[in-house]
Amino acid sequence: MKIEEIKGLQCYQCNCLFPIDPFPYTCPQCGKNLDYIYDYEMIKSSWTKTGLEQNPDLSMWRYHPLLPVSQVPDNTSLRVGGTPLVNLPKIANQHGLSTFQIKDDTRNPSGSLKDRASEVGIQHALELGKDTIVGASTGNAGSSLAALAAHHGFTSVIFAPANAPPAKLAQIRQHGAKLIAIDSNYDRAFDLAIEWTKLNNHYSRNTGYNPILAEGKKTVAFEIAEQNNWQVPDHIFIPVGDGCIISGVYKGFFDLLALDWIDHMPRLHPVQAHGSAAIVNSLSREGAIESVQAQTLADSISVDKPRDGEKARRAILASGGVGFKVSDDEILSAQQALSGSTGLFAEPAAAAAYAGFLQASEKIFFNADDKVTVLITGTGLKDIPAAQKNLGSLEIIPAEISEIENYLSRDNK
Amino acid sequence: MKIEEIKGLQCYQCNCLFPIDPFPYTCPQCGKNLDYIYDYEMIKSSWTKTGLEQNPDLSMWRYHPLLPVSQVPDNTSLRVGGTPLVNLPKIANQHGLSTFQIKDDTRNPSGSLKDRASEVGIQHALELGKDTIVGASTGNAGSSLAALAAHHGFTSVIFAPANAPPAKLAQIRQHGAKLIAIDSNYDRAFDLAIEWTKLNNHYSRNTGYNPILAEGKKTVAFEIAEQNNWQVPDHIFIPVGDGCIISGVYKGFFDLLALDWIDHMPRLHPVQAHGSAAIVNSLSREGAIESVQAQTLADSISVDKPRDGEKARRAILASGGVGFKVSDDEILSAQQALSGSTGLFAEPAAAAAYAGFLQASEKIFFNADDKVTVLITGTGLKDIPAAQKNLGSLEIIPAEISEIENYLSRDNK
Repeated sequence: MKIEEIKGLQCYQCNCLFPIDPFPYTCPQCGKNLDYIYDYEMIKSSWTKTGLEQNPDLSMWRYHPLLPVSQVPDNTSLRVGGTPLVNLPKIANQHGLSTFQIKDDTRNPSGSLKDRASEVGIQHALELGKDTIVGASTGNAGSSLAALAAHHGFTSVIFAPANAPPAKLAQIRQHGAKLIAIDSNYDRAFDLAIEWTKLNNHYSRNTGYNPILAEGKKTVAFEIAEQNNWQVPDHIFIPVGDGCIISGVYKGFFDLLALDWIDHMPRLHPVQAHGSAAIVNSLSREGAIESVQAQTLADSISVDKPRDGEKARRAILASGGVGFKVSDDEILSAQQALSGSTGLFAEPAAAAAYAGFLQASEKIFFNADDKVTVLITGTGLKDIPAAQKNLGSLEIIPAEISEIENYLSRDNK
Repeated sequence: MKIEEIKGLQCYQCNCLFPIDPFPYTCPQCGKNLDYIYDYEMIKSSWTKTGLEQNPDLSMWRYHPLLPVSQVPDNTSLRVGGTPLVNLPKIANQHGLSTFQIKDDTRNPSGSLKDRASEVGIQHALELGKDTIVGASTGNAGSSLAALAAHHGFTSVIFAPANAPPAKLAQIRQHGAKLIAIDSNYDRAFDLAIEWTKLNNHYSRNTGYNPILAEGKKTVAFEIAEQNNWQVPDHIFIPVGDGCIISGVYKGFFDLLALDWIDHMPRLHPVQAHGSAAIVNSLSREGAIESVQAQTLADSISVDKPRDGEKARRAILASGGVGFKVSDDEILSAQQALSGSTGLFAEPAAAAAYAGFLQASEKIFFNADDKVTVLITGTGLKDIPAAQKNLGSLEIIPAEISEIENYLSRDNK
């Protein structure tokens, strides 16, 4: 986007508008989170659906006119975004829906939706003249930053709880990032990462702190709209931890409404684990969002204090979303049901969104012929031990046909 | 493709041509492997580059006129194929090449190139009226078959060595496949799978046995050509186990040459692990390919007896390919170098191809301005323990800024 198309950064709390230079991260007045504000009339005058259709770039950069950085990276061939929207008519039929779709964001370079945020953050860091990017992560954001920083030639420093899933920590180190695995939780990692960024004048990729990350994440909404020929779904189920993804999705549809490219805002339904439900809990009461002592096996949505909680709550309420809470058992069972019927392997946090959908369907939440999309945000390959919990121990079979016959006939295997 | 465009199945050994109905799998005369033979003139008369360019389907099914099944599946939205071709100009510069590219086939639904074979095999099974598909696998083919069978509503039975990487076995079970984890090796799994298929009149997805699988795999060559605007690379480095992928890639470029869509066959260089190099060993001597006692950590290319060895050898020699053998240490080091400089996380077998490229470059194998592509066939997330071998143990840091300062300054971390 052209820089003059950015009106500024607005605080969700005090509503003040600030210039983007010098880049403030949070509200200089009250410290709360900021949101990019655009001049949509100016954007409209130079960008059309036809222009978009003719863009051969399949990555998220095809939506550059709605991304608040000056340039498209030199090389977008790694293809962040441009993930499949999988139509699953059997599931639609089972639940009396006209359409059921999974947006499969496991197909990003590092296996999660977080790549959309890292990609725009890295371009922003480049434009601000930074060469080192610091982030806190329960795993996916960190492995995403590590991978994309390596790709674009940046140094990355990742703060993570040492008890994050080993695959995610290995992935971070594999990409040559400097991993700070602390003997504490995500919330402490978050604060330390910001302190370290400020001390060293680096760039921060902390979710729920740097407003540009939601701008990257919103591209998933653009894709859901474009892949549906701009006839957007009625409902979208979204796994929620910090709240940044659901705020991002909201912002994406908000942009498209402002451009008159779509005719309504889908209802955005947050799904949280029972043990980590600060945002969903807050929907039914007034006042500030209360922290919890997060406890769930779905590590990517295990958050005590949701750093984008207020923006998320507004997005949910403004879109007519309803909160769902699911147990770890529901998550694992939804994970397996999804893999067994669709071929998609979601990590627990992502499978939570499908669990929320199943719960909604049981409660007869939908109208006949509703159109539903579930957002799958990260791959199950990053957390094999979680999947193994449901699978039981592996039975080893002697390599003889008769033994195999016995095995398969037993328990109707 | 229209069935009349298929001339038949030809034995690579005795050259006899057989009809496709009833489907023979292997040569009814001598038992060797078969190859699909097409009437390219007939294909040419109904399919053009312009027709292809206008096809909005990004999956491998955009090349249906070159795939030997009657129909495109009802639903291709899961998107098998259509993976990114990643341009890496820095690596090209370092090695004095005009272009260096990675074909990132980790971005398939189940995380490996094998999805291309499973996808066409499943459609073929459907057209033959089968509902159960049986395959042998060291991991990737099995997890691919399990995932895509689940997606398309088929039953899958997978024979695998019980010591395959746990993530791959978990992935197979996660998708509801019937996993036969045997107390033996891949070669025994291979034979048992065929026996079981015949006993039960099921469909076989055994690589190096069913000739349609190479037809699926060849779509990666179509994509490399189309994504390069039909100016194909000079060299392609390909990890080789059974030999089916390299035969498939050869077949893909062979098809395009027959259609006059490209002007030369790229040199296809097989890369094998030192401990599992039956095909590369065979390149320098006459006579049948000799089995080995395979030993390498790169499980996907750990093969005693390469089931598509002869077809692979012919493909390599016909394309002017040169064999490379790499040690497990070279593989792990190439895996880490690739992740650290490109953001791509390849499994060891896939990283072997990059190790082969590095070895070739050291030997001053290339001409200035050569164009090189390396095929990355499976994701590193499926074998975290292998990556961890290079990473050393994780250091846990006390959650204080001073401790982090110490940690990062130490050893120039």
